[in-house]
Amino acid sequence: MTEPQTPGSRRGDAFGAMLREYREIGEGCELVERDDGWVGISAGGEFYFAEDDEWPDPDRRALDRVEGRVLDVGCGAGRAALALQERGHGVTAVDVSPGAVEVSRDRGVRDARVADVADEFDPDTFDTILMLGNNFGLVGTAETALDRLGDLATVATDDATLVVQSRDPVMTDDEHHLAYHEYNRERGRLPGALRMRVRHERLATPWFDYLMAAPDTMANLASETPWTLVDTIEPEAGLDPAGGDYVGILEIEG
Amino acid sequence: MTEPQTPGSRRGDAFGAMLREYREIGEGCELVERDDGWVGISAGGEFYFAEDDEWPDPDRRALDRVEGRVLDVGCGAGRAALALQERGHGVTAVDVSPGAVEVSRDRGVRDARVADVADEFDPDTFDTILMLGNNFGLVGTAETALDRLGDLATVATDDATLVVQSRDPVMTDDEHHLAYHEYNRERGRLPGALRMRVRHERLATPWFDYLMAAPDTMANLASETPWTLVDTIEPEAGLDPAGGDYVGILEIEG
Repeated sequence: MTEPQTPGSRRGDAFGAMLREYREIGEGCELVERDDGWVGISAGGEFYFAEDDEWPDPDRRALDRVEGRVLDVGCGAGRAALALQERGHGVTAVDVSPGAVEVSRDRGVRDARVADVADEFDPDTFDTILMLGNNFGLVGTAETALDRLGDLATVATDDATLVVQSRDPVMTDDEHHLAYHEYNRERGRLPGALRMRVRHERLATPWFDYLMAAPDTMANLASETPWTLVDTIEPEAGLDPAGGDYVGILEIEG
Repeated sequence: MTEPQTPGSRRGDAFGAMLREYREIGEGCELVERDDGWVGISAGGEFYFAEDDEWPDPDRRALDRVEGRVLDVGCGAGRAALALQERGHGVTAVDVSPGAVEVSRDRGVRDARVADVADEFDPDTFDTILMLGNNFGLVGTAETALDRLGDLATVATDDATLVVQSRDPVMTDDEHHLAYHEYNRERGRLPGALRMRVRHERLATPWFDYLMAAPDTMANLASETPWTLVDTIEPEAGLDPAGGDYVGILEIEG
């Protein structure tokens, strides 16, 4: 993968820096740059610090699907880990961002770590694996999704649940997003296979892949792994301003 | 000047696109990128559409210094031109951004144009030249400031007033901004001589120079032109959250 850098920006933990700054001053937003040159705000900082009663509808209802010991993948500022700790779950929270892990610990997440799932945990460890806040995206691309979902299956118990939030990428009227989907199709990628990086002040993360997938795409990808998409949580009418958001519930085939 | 482009971004009127979008949906902000790689929000879109009673303190009080026929340089969405039209002034509003001029016209600015000041107007035309909202920055660098201030003197009447808002760049605790000032000194530029561009979705403006100058710097630059800094409007105590903002009042030496 080519790694263009803007002159003067420094490779670093832009996402973690944004979270640390929001924690400190209560202001800021997550700025992302896509590999077609599009830049914009993906979320305000407050999104990462919201209490569960302020969450998007599908994320909030997804908490009721959580059982037992939980692995929270892409914990951000720890909003899901904190909500589940309060409900009595044992939670392990991981993020590739050291700043995110620092903020999560600082806010009270008892077990937060910078970790690669496959290397860090023993098999059959977690009853629920949680990827809220669009974190199904962390599976990367159609190609890497198979390995990453496989790794998650390995650390999950046999009757585990994988609770993943995603978005149907084509549920948009935005001409730039629609053009990007077409660009992706032309280069043999899924329409919602974003390549992007986070920028904050002088920091830019490495470019990374982040997949937005409609339920049928998620079901197809999962079918080549131990997981099966068994249910979706769709937003209630009027509670999906962004469009296309949902939570997928996956289980390991018996 | 080198003109680095992010892969995929398109050269275009990013600033005007932001204003048009804000006019349409009431959301958005001005995203700037500086040539040290820093990116951030320079202003929310609402700043450009604010009524004069919502303006920053020095900008608001500067309106009382306006007399006669007005040239509004860098009109943005027309907030100053509209306020002055309401007060009965004849106002000509110019901006290099076609989108800004379109939005200004659309909101009721009667004479708004994409124009270069030096080529567009006859000598001795304007009684007041207005550059609010940090628009002293449009003089560019220490070098270009002399020509641009000279051009403004040419189209101004002999007893004209130049009303310009700027900011003391060193009035900040931000480590990145302070490092940028040092970088500027090292390369022989004034500390507040920003080189930046505006980005919006897939658009990026050309890189341009934008000068932030404390009153003593403004006075020094003006001293090599027909203008003299005769007064400043400083924010009232507690009304300068950004730090260092002020309005300079300049007149042509008799």
